[in-house]
Amino acid sequence: MSTQPDASLQAEVNRLRLQLESLQAKDGSEPITVGNYLLARLEQLKVTKLFGLPGDFNLGFLDLVEDHPKIEWVGNCNELNAAYAADGYARVKEHSIGVILTTFGVGELSAINGIAGAFSEMVPVLHIVGVPSTRQQKAKALLHHTLGDGRYDAYIKAAENFTVSQAILTEANAAAAEIDRVLTDCITRARPAYLTLPTNLVFEKISSERLKIPLSRLPPPNDPETEAFVLDEIVKLVEEAEDDVVILVDACAIRHDVRAEVNDLIKKTGYPVYSAPMGKTAVSEKYERYGGIYVGSISHPDIKEKVESAKLILSIGCLKSDFNTGNFTYSIPLSRTIEFHSDHTKVQFAGFPGIGMSELLPLVTARLRPCSEAARKIPVPDFTAVVPNEADDVISQAWFWPTMGTFFKPQDVIIAETGTSSFGILDVPLPDKSVFVSQILWGSIGWTVGSTLGAALAARDIGLNRTILFIGDGSLQLTVQELSVMLRHGLKPIIFVLNNSGYTIERFLHGKHRKYNDISNWKWTALLGVLGDEEGTLSQSYTVRNKDELSALLKDESFARAEKMQLVEVMMPKLDAPRALVQQAELSGKTNAYVAI
Amino acid sequence: MSTQPDASLQAEVNRLRLQLESLQAKDGSEPITVGNYLLARLEQLKVTKLFGLPGDFNLGFLDLVEDHPKIEWVGNCNELNAAYAADGYARVKEHSIGVILTTFGVGELSAINGIAGAFSEMVPVLHIVGVPSTRQQKAKALLHHTLGDGRYDAYIKAAENFTVSQAILTEANAAAAEIDRVLTDCITRARPAYLTLPTNLVFEKISSERLKIPLSRLPPPNDPETEAFVLDEIVKLVEEAEDDVVILVDACAIRHDVRAEVNDLIKKTGYPVYSAPMGKTAVSEKYERYGGIYVGSISHPDIKEKVESAKLILSIGCLKSDFNTGNFTYSIPLSRTIEFHSDHTKVQFAGFPGIGMSELLPLVTARLRPCSEAARKIPVPDFTAVVPNEADDVISQAWFWPTMGTFFKPQDVIIAETGTSSFGILDVPLPDKSVFVSQILWGSIGWTVGSTLGAALAARDIGLNRTILFIGDGSLQLTVQELSVMLRHGLKPIIFVLNNSGYTIERFLHGKHRKYNDISNWKWTALLGVLGDEEGTLSQSYTVRNKDELSALLKDESFARAEKMQLVEVMMPKLDAPRALVQQAELSGKTNAYVAI
Repeated sequence: MSTQPDASLQAEVNRLRLQLESLQAKDGSEPITVGNYLLARLEQLKVTKLFGLPGDFNLGFLDLVEDHPKIEWVGNCNELNAAYAADGYARVKEHSIGVILTTFGVGELSAINGIAGAFSEMVPVLHIVGVPSTRQQKAKALLHHTLGDGRYDAYIKAAENFTVSQAILTEANAAAAEIDRVLTDCITRARPAYLTLPTNLVFEKISSERLKIPLSRLPPPNDPETEAFVLDEIVKLVEEAEDDVVILVDACAIRHDVRAEVNDLIKKTGYPVYSAPMGKTAVSEKYERYGGIYVGSISHPDIKEKVESAKLILSIGCLKSDFNTGNFTYSIPLSRTIEFHSDHTKVQFAGFPGIGMSELLPLVTARLRPCSEAARKIPVPDFTAVVPNEADDVISQAWFWPTMGTFFKPQDVIIAETGTSSFGILDVPLPDKSVFVSQILWGSIGWTVGSTLGAALAARDIGLNRTILFIGDGSLQLTVQELSVMLRHGLKPIIFVLNNSGYTIERFLHGKHRKYNDISNWKWTALLGVLGDEEGTLSQSYTVRNKDELSALLKDESFARAEKMQLVEVMMPKLDAPRALVQQAELSGKTNAYVAI
Repeated sequence: MSTQPDASLQAEVNRLRLQLESLQAKDGSEPITVGNYLLARLEQLKVTKLFGLPGDFNLGFLDLVEDHPKIEWVGNCNELNAAYAADGYARVKEHSIGVILTTFGVGELSAINGIAGAFSEMVPVLHIVGVPSTRQQKAKALLHHTLGDGRYDAYIKAAENFTVSQAILTEANAAAAEIDRVLTDCITRARPAYLTLPTNLVFEKISSERLKIPLSRLPPPNDPETEAFVLDEIVKLVEEAEDDVVILVDACAIRHDVRAEVNDLIKKTGYPVYSAPMGKTAVSEKYERYGGIYVGSISHPDIKEKVESAKLILSIGCLKSDFNTGNFTYSIPLSRTIEFHSDHTKVQFAGFPGIGMSELLPLVTARLRPCSEAARKIPVPDFTAVVPNEADDVISQAWFWPTMGTFFKPQDVIIAETGTSSFGILDVPLPDKSVFVSQILWGSIGWTVGSTLGAALAARDIGLNRTILFIGDGSLQLTVQELSVMLRHGLKPIIFVLNNSGYTIERFLHGKHRKYNDISNWKWTALLGVLGDEEGTLSQSYTVRNKDELSALLKDESFARAEKMQLVEVMMPKLDAPRALVQQAELSGKTNAYVAI
């Protein structure tokens, strides 16, 4: 319904836009839509997959995604699984990020547990939310997906708790700078960022000039004077330790991308290396000076003794959460510890904020001497997993994990769900250049189905070997539908479903015989046929009920070649758990203090 | 490791506790654990089902739940579905509430979209979160399920956006008052509340005295002077309208529990009654003065004309969201409207905060006269759904919905997913005393699977008839696992899965032929067998490919008796949608403003 004043206003708007566009064009760069600017930045960050679901406020942007020559839309079954997948993708695809696209309110809130987990475990994920037009937002229109009381900031407020950086786009001319800002925060701080994209901005034209300068991953530089001081202190302590030094690698060695620097350090010095659970595979577990997993009082006695008796511990990227430390049972005095972190360093009791390890580690490596021949001869515990000789035919936890150890190959991606899997796998040395994926701090059961999808896509991108998932029956029920998306994308993971009738990790924490720890029994081996493999040609499923059956399957070459998607239901006893889980659960159970003292 | 000072401190603690307990016992009431106090209050609110998942910080409380004689633990497959189920339960079980129990961080955040939806649509749900002990919280221990940076308030901050009331329990002696406070807010304001229960408080003993006084549902009373004024104004306007008055019922007539009052009003006055989509079944759709669904410009022309030409509209519990008003196309001037709400009244342009309808409506009814004989003879549009005579055999949307109308029975619970279902069902008159369940404002696809679980449990509790769900294939993929829980609880819903190859509502909003609106094709009729019906005895599944097959099935008496859980895959054309959806999507699509003007 056009009126005289409206028409002339509209004409004015059109004229101003043309003026603006021509001025922008004068900088010589091609104008680009806001949506494509964002995709261009993602492409620069080596993103090839975008996770999420369509929803009416993101469909316009989805057109651009679908038409993009390099970035593929994954199309998940639900938003929580999509966030899990973006997380898994980012963990495997180094120097890239995970990206999830959801819709205003209903989509983004469904994903928020996945974003929080990525925040917690320091995984760079960008959460793009398609939101109503700026006009609708200003009017606080009572749209579907709103809370019915006019609030348009509630989802942003929720998101702020779980992201390092947020950009709420309102104008095209600020969009590029805002996009760059949150992406930079995301990659330098290795935590999730949040970006809202209103429908009316997606196709607005802006300058592409900024794209010529790639985003920087570099953290802020260390203050030189402080750094020099810290370096001297470190070298002094190392020398005082007279080669009785141990290196302990943990989560942030991986998450903050200093594996190369760490490897230089250990190669030069020759010090023994151990790993916390969250640092597993930061260093090759086949390295001859690598001694295995240190996890406080529940470590193998050899490892515990070697680590805790060292005169000095170089702790790289530690994250001392309960499950990562045997319930806080590190017995390592601060006086014998130097901690390296992405944004600070601790030398015994002194803290040095702003001195980050990516700069510091190479300087340390340069200053330290290789350890003496004598020191190099001191044996490191032999980190192997011996398959126990058990009389019966039952697939016990104690037999299963070392046996799986014989199956893994270099460059495999090995994913372990929170539960018997994440604890059982700890004692198994993984092959060279393999990638270990687990969520030991956040611990959201079911996470690994989505993260396996993302990890497998990334693994295919960068030419890794097989993707192998271990998940309990209880956990699989939370997120099962994402198996369908794996089939649709032609992925070929091997999924071991540990069928032991329930939430085993919960049983060991509390309520071992309680009904609330039971679950429905599903036909696990029929799942893939129902969730997309209609003809039965894309996948293969198996049940193994005893040691012989599992051994035979693992030796089967076509199984090992993983030429289809494969699901293996492993029948295991209900009340059996890996040693590490039993011990951890006992400790955690005590601190939960259910019984009033 | 006990030391002398510790032992005497402990002895002091024990002595003080005994003293406290005996003082408390003096009030004559049985001491009760905090956990059981909470359960007792829920029992008073007629709660018989508790939804959620076990997680280590809630297992102690779960022991009490499992042992409770009246309240049953449902044990969902994931927390989002559990929240959806609590919502559905609350909608069907009048004067009760839905309750969900999750665990700290990972559980509660997974549920938050379900809580937000309940907030938006005014459904009373209590979200109980099992959290670490007060001691661990104070120490900000780096537990699993935390964010790794010591923050223990992030989840509370997120929850505050989507709940009317929060109680963060820290001490046993405040627990009863706090529990009562949030429950009272929940039931009087009909919106979700949030309660954290630390592990160390669950078994603490407190007085049960407060339980003798039931919680009150009553909203604050209306100010008498204002109320009298408002009443006079209303009566004056009604008399000026000379019986040309129409009553329009909407969401809050149901959500704020004034159906009885509304029915008294319509019976006494005899005015024609219409319903907005969210008010469907507030009034019996078989009532002879009921004319059907008013939804702005996309209403049937008869209905549009009758409503918009009335001299006065008594609008009861309106919630004018986009999908509820044909994209805000009500053509009813404020000058001809009186709006009744739970906590305010609007008479033409004047607003009267604090004057609520549960008190006001009976007073209005008492003052108004029945309409004249002449007025009563003015016909109301005949709200029927005529099955169209279509030449071909295809199950079109236009044929499907009226046909389903012939199948429904009194007291059925009819649930329609956001999509073709929620729009298609609008034009179908539902039987007497039936309950219509849909999420027209929040619109989170997949919601209905969880809400069907909750609704069916509630329906069984209160002796309603069958539970019937309509859901699209796209939506079902988000939340499919909850079918398993329905089987496990022996529920017998009839689930119509509309297989039209994708996200149809999205297709009509934007991207009709885009791949992102496609989904994997699942073997829908094999789902129940895989998700718990191992022997094939608990359920039956069917595919109907044409009109004859569907008609035959609907006429089949054993099918209609719903003696097992039943799933019907209905093959429908990909690009067909109900009239109302096509029109709504066109309007919404324009306001989404994807193309820069």
